[in-house]
This record gives sequence, C-alpha cells and structure tokens, in this order.
Amino acid sequence: MNRLVTSVNLTLPAWVDAAAYGEGLYPTDEAKMRLAVELARRNVEARTGGPFGAAVFDAATGGLISVGVNRVVPLNNSTAHAEMMAFMLAQVRLGKFRLDDGGHAFVLATSAQPCAMCYGGVVWAGVRRMIVAARKEDVEAHTHFDEGPVPDNWVDGLRARGIEVTHDVLRADAVEVLKDYTRRGGADY
Amino acid sequence: MNRLVTSVNLTLPAWVDAAAYGEGLYPTDEAKMRLAVELARRNVEARTGGPFGAAVFDAATGGLISVGVNRVVPLNNSTAHAEMMAFMLAQVRLGKFRLDDGGHAFVLATSAQPCAMCYGGVVWAGVRRMIVAARKEDVEAHTHFDEGPVPDNWVDGLRARGIEVTHDVLRADAVEVLKDYTRRGGADY
Repeated sequence: MNRLVTSVNLTLPAWVDAAAYGEGLYPTDEAKMRLAVELARRNVEARTGGPFGAAVFDAATGGLISVGVNRVVPLNNSTAHAEMMAFMLAQVRLGKFRLDDGGHAFVLATSAQPCAMCYGGVVWAGVRRMIVAARKEDVEAHTHFDEGPVPDNWVDGLRARGIEVTHDVLRADAVEVLKDYTRRGGADY
Repeated sequence: MNRLVTSVNLTLPAWVDAAAYGEGLYPTDEAKMRLAVELARRNVEARTGGPFGAAVFDAATGGLISVGVNRVVPLNNSTAHAEMMAFMLAQVRLGKFRLDDGGHAFVLATSAQPCAMCYGGVVWAGVRRMIVAARKEDVEAHTHFDEGPVPDNWVDGLRARGIEVTHDVLRADAVEVLKDYTRRGGADY
C-alpha cells in the first residue's frame, strides 16, 4: 500500500475572501504597504497564522494581484510564509511560473524582511522590486522568530538579479503588529 | 468583486501515485539517494517537471515519509521545487509544521544541492540531516538552471542550526539525469 501524500492545498484564511481586497488601486509604496501590514494585523487578530503579511501588485498600474499571510501553524506547513503564499497565488492567477515573463513588472510589499527561504523565493518569483516594512532586527527584537541564514549582503544579491529593495516603509506600523503578536502569546517556531 | 485567488493546490505527477514508493525501507544513504535520483529521472522522462527529486525519511528506521519532484512549470509555481514539495507533503502527512517536533529525526535526500530558496526551507522543515547528490557546479555546468544567491558558507549555516550535510552520494547518477534533461531540450527557467 502506498501511504504517501501526493497533494497539498494551501489556503488563505476565510476573512480574506470576505474582504474587499482587490477593489481600487494601490499607487504608492505607502498604499501597498498599508495593505501588507493590515493583512499581518488581521492575521494576528483572527489567530490564523503568524504576524506577517505580503501582497503582489502590478508595478505600472498599482493593481493588486495577490495577497499572502503566514499560514505555517494552521496549515502545518513550514513553507507557508506570507511572501511565498503571495507569490504562489499571483502565479496561479496569472498562469505563469515567473510573474514578469511577458514584460509586465511586479512589486512585492512585505511587512517584514524576508527570511532565508523567502529571500531565495523572491529571486524566482519574477518581481522587480520589493518594499519592506520591519527589519530583521525588529523581528528578532520583538518576537522569537528567527530569520535564518540570510546573507549579510542580501540586498546586493537581489540587486545583482535586477530586483530593487525599498526599506522602512511603514516600519513602525509593522513593528506594532509584531509586538502585538508577542503580547498575545502567539506561537513562535 | 474580489478576484483574488485564495487557495492553491500542489500535486505530484500521477506516476508517483501508481508507483510502489513507500514499501520497504531505505536504510543506507545510497538507498535513500537512489530513490531521489530515480524520482528526478522519472520526472524528466514523463516531462512532468525539472530534473530534480527529493525524499524525506525517518532517520531511525529508514522509512519513507514523503517524496517530491520539481513541479514549477506544470503547476505555474516558482516555489514548487523538489525539496519544498517533499517537506510540505511530509508535514501534511505527519500533521506537524516542523518535522522533528516530538523527538523523531528526519533526513532529506535531494538529487542536487538546494537552491537559495530551498536552502532556507531546509532550516525550517525540521530535518536533522541532508544527503546531496549533484553539486551546484554540476547543475550549472550541465543545465541552464541557476542556484541563486546561496551563501558560500551554506554548509556552516546549516551545521550551526544542527543540520548535517553529506555530499556526493550517487553524484554521477544525478549528473546523468541533469545531462539527459538538457539533451531533451527541457525548459530552463
């Protein structure tokens, strides 16, 4: 008998379905990040995963392509970080394994600096720019999450592959979400 | 209208279901890697993804927990590398977001050195040891795949987190699969 599991379903929380995300545009870095941080906050409040949110946008129009939140604990899936969820869901929606195939440029907004896994994931996803709120030191100061073995020169590693990074957009707001998660005694892993 | 996609399903190829993987044990490093390389080879022959295979085993018994193959192109998913598939499917099967929670130790066998994303993924998955066949330089010499910004001291980064790495197990066999993929004109991305 073959008892191997051969498929896995990754889902966003039900509150994402009910929200009106996707209406309107997100023209500025602040507008994009406001959504990413709101996703992180709602994920904490609803206890549907870790204190991290992300979203992918069309760089030219500011249109929202996908959202992601951390789903590691609810889904029993160590890869279900916010950025990875957003990448997968954007790629499924557009029917492309690399978002920028075809010439459109895409932007990732993420409420915290990517961990070592998501750092590599950014390289393959096909985004041209990444907007980051909380820094690695914020995550490590205010939660017990570990970012893993991210290279010190991680920004250079992305720039060398044509991916620009913008730091500290709504950093204080993202830090508040991290603190709130820890205050509530959220699971650390 | 909310047009966001809110779930994604990741599947192994149908030939995995039909195979008798999971019967018997894989006690040695060579036995574990023989399976990982066979998975890579079948994935190339069936044209169901890139030339990479991986599997997770119980370290104590040699029992097979999960298998993975690269599914990036068929699933339009840049995160669907062999190692990530194997981790997710092992975690779903065991109902844990970190495999070694509970004291059991697990081993990953992968037909090629992990890329930058899977490198970070190894840290979170909960495996204590990783057995690798082809090296990064093999992948880059025989295919057009890029491993991404993997730190030079990646083995130290894993060891510092309690994960041992064993190199070059059935390396030549894994290299043959890489060459065969390129000979067949397999998609590079």
